[in-house]
Amino acid sequence: MKIVVVGSGNVATHFARAFRASGNDIVQVYSRNIAHAQVLASQLDAQAINRFADLADDAHLYLLAIPDDALYEVVSQISPKQGIVVHTSGSVPMDVLKPLSAKIGVVYSPQTFIKSLEMNYSELPICLEASSSEVLQTLKKLVIPASKNIYDISSEQRRKLHLAAVFVNNFVNALNATGQDLTRENGVPFDILFPIMASTAERAKQGDLWQLQTGPAARGDKQTIANHRKLLSSDPEKLQIYDLMTALIQSHTRCK
Amino acid sequence: MKIVVVGSGNVATHFARAFRASGNDIVQVYSRNIAHAQVLASQLDAQAINRFADLADDAHLYLLAIPDDALYEVVSQISPKQGIVVHTSGSVPMDVLKPLSAKIGVVYSPQTFIKSLEMNYSELPICLEASSSEVLQTLKKLVIPASKNIYDISSEQRRKLHLAAVFVNNFVNALNATGQDLTRENGVPFDILFPIMASTAERAKQGDLWQLQTGPAARGDKQTIANHRKLLSSDPEKLQIYDLMTALIQSHTRCK
Repeated sequence: MKIVVVGSGNVATHFARAFRASGNDIVQVYSRNIAHAQVLASQLDAQAINRFADLADDAHLYLLAIPDDALYEVVSQISPKQGIVVHTSGSVPMDVLKPLSAKIGVVYSPQTFIKSLEMNYSELPICLEASSSEVLQTLKKLVIPASKNIYDISSEQRRKLHLAAVFVNNFVNALNATGQDLTRENGVPFDILFPIMASTAERAKQGDLWQLQTGPAARGDKQTIANHRKLLSSDPEKLQIYDLMTALIQSHTRCK
Repeated sequence: MKIVVVGSGNVATHFARAFRASGNDIVQVYSRNIAHAQVLASQLDAQAINRFADLADDAHLYLLAIPDDALYEVVSQISPKQGIVVHTSGSVPMDVLKPLSAKIGVVYSPQTFIKSLEMNYSELPICLEASSSEVLQTLKKLVIPASKNIYDISSEQRRKLHLAAVFVNNFVNALNATGQDLTRENGVPFDILFPIMASTAERAKQGDLWQLQTGPAARGDKQTIANHRKLLSSDPEKLQIYDLMTALIQSHTRCK
């Protein structure tokens, strides 16, 4: 399959590598910045371009792996003559691609990608949506060799999945960062908490997570909560998080 | 070393097993509920007791592995004639044990323990505090065969470490649970998010976590944040968490 990749960032890089590894031909990489296009294109034996006028018009698939706001812009600027057009966004509906082709779809992975890190694509969850069962089959053939975890997910489901990913990834990282701040303030190595962080992630696979909730809030341990609030009395930002997370936990685990 | 264990819960069970595995002799297990004491004692070839009057007075170590409020109560009720007395609490200062012995200490692990699950004790982080360097050496000899990760942590450091553990374990679990709710509301399998949760925990080992913060809040992606807030408009509890976590991230990653 001949594939044109629009974008040269983290998602574009990993999807292009995965698709190539499963036997496809990446013919072009587009980026506004030609140097960025060249870096990725050279890894894929592809042509680097930075003008939409140079887009190949005979590719089987156009992969738009670009930020959401850029996506709307690009949709208004390109007009592929044939082929399937897909985007990779968690929060943009598939239908924004309608002006471009009758054959459209979405290839979204709720995973964080970092260009410079190797990834095991066989574990990567891939959420597919397509304008027809024919297009869906083609996308499955494209990605299944790369990943064992393929899901059919509608635009409506995907935007809430993307939101859920913000909670379990971005927001969790912010809590971990706050934990890191607290250890640093006290000259304690953050490493001490690596095992419990790994256990917390592991526990997330074990069932209903409100049932598995532990700690002073879930136990209703008022003395410990009062002690923690006192420790945070000079740090209103952390205290606010503490109070809100404690209330959230108690609304799901107490008084039931 | 002859050890008396006061308590029969998750922490008591795992510490008793770990200390026995490294060649110590657990002579007694105390619990208010004799049946609970018997369950643990039978695994350790120890005597089960439920009256403080029956406590052996010739043990080398008394391990008080009980909840914080019970700890204060027990301290007022026992009077060992000799030996080291330690507790296992993250938030209680070592000095509450002073009435009991000149040789006191704390053996605390910021890890969650579940009786029914086997654990690899060699990875377990152990925070030690002791009333003298002699007692500290004894505790190190006791635990080092079981764990490679021993830290000297003062009472002052420990209570903030315990608070940090609440953030990275209890509060993170609550965010994961919220993510689970969001996927269920939309008929999406939560499994899709297992890889990203594992990556988030893995990333916590990589350096300064505010530097590694990603997502719409860190990028200042107003459109996506507005879309997410709209999705949560009928769920004030989740919206409040969303807004506060977004503000927390932005106060640490934007406008610097």
